[in-house]
Amino acid sequence: MAEKLKIMSLGGLNEIGKNMTVLEYGRDIIIVDCGVGFPEGDMYGVDLVIPDVTYLIKNQNKIRGIFLTHGHEDHIGSLPYVLQQIKAPVHGTRLTLGLVKLKLEEHKILDKCKLITHEAGETVKAGNFQVEFIHVNHSIADAVAFAIKTPIGTVVMTGDFKIDPTAEDGMIDLGRFGQLGKEGVLALLCDSTNVERGGYTANEMVVTESFDRLFKNCDQRIIVSTFASNAYRLQSLITVAHKYGRKIAFSGRSMENILKVSTELGYMKLPPKTVVDINQIKSIPKEKLVIVATGSQGEDMSALYRMAYASHRQVEIQAGDRVILSASAIPGNEKAIGNIINELYRKGADVVCDKLSEVHVSGHACQEELKIIHGLLKPRFFIPVHGEQRHLRIHAKLAVNAMGMDPRHVIISDLGRVIELTGRSCKLTGTVPAGKVLVDGSGVGDVGSVVLRDRKHLAQDGMLVVVVNLSAEDGSILSGPDIITRGFIYVKESEELMDNLREITLGALEKCRNRQARDWAAIKSAIKSDLSHYLFKTTKRNPMILPVIMEL
Amino acid sequence: MAEKLKIMSLGGLNEIGKNMTVLEYGRDIIIVDCGVGFPEGDMYGVDLVIPDVTYLIKNQNKIRGIFLTHGHEDHIGSLPYVLQQIKAPVHGTRLTLGLVKLKLEEHKILDKCKLITHEAGETVKAGNFQVEFIHVNHSIADAVAFAIKTPIGTVVMTGDFKIDPTAEDGMIDLGRFGQLGKEGVLALLCDSTNVERGGYTANEMVVTESFDRLFKNCDQRIIVSTFASNAYRLQSLITVAHKYGRKIAFSGRSMENILKVSTELGYMKLPPKTVVDINQIKSIPKEKLVIVATGSQGEDMSALYRMAYASHRQVEIQAGDRVILSASAIPGNEKAIGNIINELYRKGADVVCDKLSEVHVSGHACQEELKIIHGLLKPRFFIPVHGEQRHLRIHAKLAVNAMGMDPRHVIISDLGRVIELTGRSCKLTGTVPAGKVLVDGSGVGDVGSVVLRDRKHLAQDGMLVVVVNLSAEDGSILSGPDIITRGFIYVKESEELMDNLREITLGALEKCRNRQARDWAAIKSAIKSDLSHYLFKTTKRNPMILPVIMEL
Repeated sequence: MAEKLKIMSLGGLNEIGKNMTVLEYGRDIIIVDCGVGFPEGDMYGVDLVIPDVTYLIKNQNKIRGIFLTHGHEDHIGSLPYVLQQIKAPVHGTRLTLGLVKLKLEEHKILDKCKLITHEAGETVKAGNFQVEFIHVNHSIADAVAFAIKTPIGTVVMTGDFKIDPTAEDGMIDLGRFGQLGKEGVLALLCDSTNVERGGYTANEMVVTESFDRLFKNCDQRIIVSTFASNAYRLQSLITVAHKYGRKIAFSGRSMENILKVSTELGYMKLPPKTVVDINQIKSIPKEKLVIVATGSQGEDMSALYRMAYASHRQVEIQAGDRVILSASAIPGNEKAIGNIINELYRKGADVVCDKLSEVHVSGHACQEELKIIHGLLKPRFFIPVHGEQRHLRIHAKLAVNAMGMDPRHVIISDLGRVIELTGRSCKLTGTVPAGKVLVDGSGVGDVGSVVLRDRKHLAQDGMLVVVVNLSAEDGSILSGPDIITRGFIYVKESEELMDNLREITLGALEKCRNRQARDWAAIKSAIKSDLSHYLFKTTKRNPMILPVIMEL
Repeated sequence: MAEKLKIMSLGGLNEIGKNMTVLEYGRDIIIVDCGVGFPEGDMYGVDLVIPDVTYLIKNQNKIRGIFLTHGHEDHIGSLPYVLQQIKAPVHGTRLTLGLVKLKLEEHKILDKCKLITHEAGETVKAGNFQVEFIHVNHSIADAVAFAIKTPIGTVVMTGDFKIDPTAEDGMIDLGRFGQLGKEGVLALLCDSTNVERGGYTANEMVVTESFDRLFKNCDQRIIVSTFASNAYRLQSLITVAHKYGRKIAFSGRSMENILKVSTELGYMKLPPKTVVDINQIKSIPKEKLVIVATGSQGEDMSALYRMAYASHRQVEIQAGDRVILSASAIPGNEKAIGNIINELYRKGADVVCDKLSEVHVSGHACQEELKIIHGLLKPRFFIPVHGEQRHLRIHAKLAVNAMGMDPRHVIISDLGRVIELTGRSCKLTGTVPAGKVLVDGSGVGDVGSVVLRDRKHLAQDGMLVVVVNLSAEDGSILSGPDIITRGFIYVKESEELMDNLREITLGALEKCRNRQARDWAAIKSAIKSDLSHYLFKTTKRNPMILPVIMEL
């Protein structure tokens, strides 16, 4: 009897980011991508979100390799953490692994990891799987899709992609997709990020043309902020800067990293004497300068942020600067970006960021492109991935309504759900552990729901510590109660309230003593309840109350 | 010598919301609008933001009246607070004052306030000012602009507006604007909210047509979420529901309030037996029902939120429900709205919210409409208002580039800046107190920057209380140190860390004793510094550390 193929998402399903998919057949497991997610608004203090890989740790002996589609954080960012929990060779294209290398070096684990470079067109054997690398277009160079041959059929995973016939490094290999379709595709896992948008994603060339228009006859200093990882965009800025006799400097650590890696690996063509160090820009006249900065998402302390708020060492925004925001807002960042734009305007900059200026295009396929992929591959089963629930549903609808798929052949899965495929059937069966592991500072997984709940409570109304010394002999008060608050109220203007709180604490202690309650937990709970009741009545607030009893 | 006219914004300039403008001439002050703002993302725990009215309190004797343009929260929401600080008659149209009344009743101050109702076309004398009410279109009925005659010329304040020739209650009175232009306008203060958008705002009728299309031949239950205050929208839903033989029920307190007020005042035409109580919907077949709910901004615990997350008493979203989101996201709310949409899809609802469906139009004028107002009024001076810095700048540019205004006659002011006008000149002079007064629970202004900074710190990394009992005689340790943490780390899994923290505290105390440091502040500071150093080294986190020393 033939084995079943299992497909499980540990990330990237019902969420944007943190992409990680596991394929299992018999005694073999391969993993596609290993990305990070970014904290939601209520994950106070959390730096990163990584996938829960418990299932992989338990099945370490089956793992044949990790395959990376491209070098974006949401596809490679968890590697430094995951590679400390499981062992596996990492396969990817040259630029992707160049970026991975940098990351593993930073975490000081590069020497323990095995990275294997491939080119689009190559096929890698990994146990029962054969993984073929297929060239696609995306907002980073060297991106690939995978056609994964398994004993029961071929699974195609697009990774992030779009169709750009004008792309610098060549158009997506639609021919190969067509061929695969003719050979027969068992299942398609396809990017859903832009499925809400009709039509086509504009070509990257449109952005280059806009840069040309904005640089031409411009006598201002030009500052551009864009995603660091978009090497095409950086190349296009370098080329246009050179064309108009401008020097170009880069600011922001991730920007410098990408530039270094992609130049070393030959992904960037640098015209002579065009790129200059950000420390050397002082001598260059304004109208001969372009500065490219991180911070297009409004990130605190990014290069653009510091330039806007006058805390950047080399650059301060000045009246007349032309600032181009070559990016669109990732949902949740709109406010932060808006604040920077306001600050740029306040400094008198001429800000270019609206849709009409065409200074950004997306890296993901819109509806018409998605239909082309569906039409070429004609998969038996379709599993929409890389999207929130609404993207998955709309993508499923597109497959059924526009492409005529049988709705029973379209599977909307969830994190940790196991999809079981035979050559003829596809169904959701069990679950494996999956979820969000939170990274805070150097701690991985030590911040969970209890800590987050407390942070939320503290953020909302602050806190109040009540300390009292009781006699071990008779429970009488030796000193205190002392009350300390933080984040609750401005104490100097609330002396009466503080006096009342002390009175209420004394009252609670008195009541406990009268009814012979000597149990600390009971005393604490009495103090907490009386204080909280009084506070809500007088202030309509609910600070965290921490009674501390010391016994002597 | 003629007096100068002073114009000061206490809100609504370099911010969206909290609109409040003060006009002063000689011994007379009038106030236009009195709105609330909503907290920014970093204003943890804050419920509302209201303007600082110190200047008005100091000049109470000059105040001749408050004039309201329309009944939206960002134009009337601060009245219950401000009217407890200053006394002034409140002038507005019928619906506007109907909503104000509800608000003042809730705050139990209605009997102390004087509300005076006017109709568009009327003029009110207030000291040296004559305030004319001019009908405009907006996303709430009974909205007006003001033409304010002063001894040195006429100032026009548009309030929020758009041009909608198909509006239920009649098109904006462009004729009057044209007449004023011919008579001569000294200064224009004009809404800048939509100045980034080219073209025209679509007519409200477009939305009605979309509802008709979506209700026709629909055999699903229909649930619509929209802004409660948009009575046109509610009316159009009632009309279309009636047309297709559906009953309509409303859910959400603000929705019920608006419905009550606008029905009582005759702003709503209710066909017989169409509107039903939300408690009476059980007996109505799904395909005969429309439910209109608050929550179009994804607000926690709003009606739509509760329906999506199955905590609404009467309605739970079910597979097949058609849910229409008739609203667009206010910046900052994108994530919350996205989460609800995902949940609706997860429940199997058919969600209609994209731009192509045309189920929402803005209430604010786009560029072409703004140009019409500028063209009709031909003001000598122009002061863009109701917008962040970028809106003000773009609006200023529009006035100069498209309308040919002299840039020296365009004034971008700021909160609290005083604009001084004579018949021939206009300049920014001094400042008056202005800013954000924060409302948290029942406290007004008792949460300031120190409290917010602490809340932010607590939210980020939590806190750690260290309590120790010292002997008053020799400074020896009588009990402790006890360490309590909240929001920092999961303590049960961090016993070693907690032990180390106690050791470090003991070490710090020992050092203090050795060098005879008996001053509490010094001891606390030593503990704090040693702990914080150790914590950052081991966890890369920086919790708030609160040393508490009790002396016996």
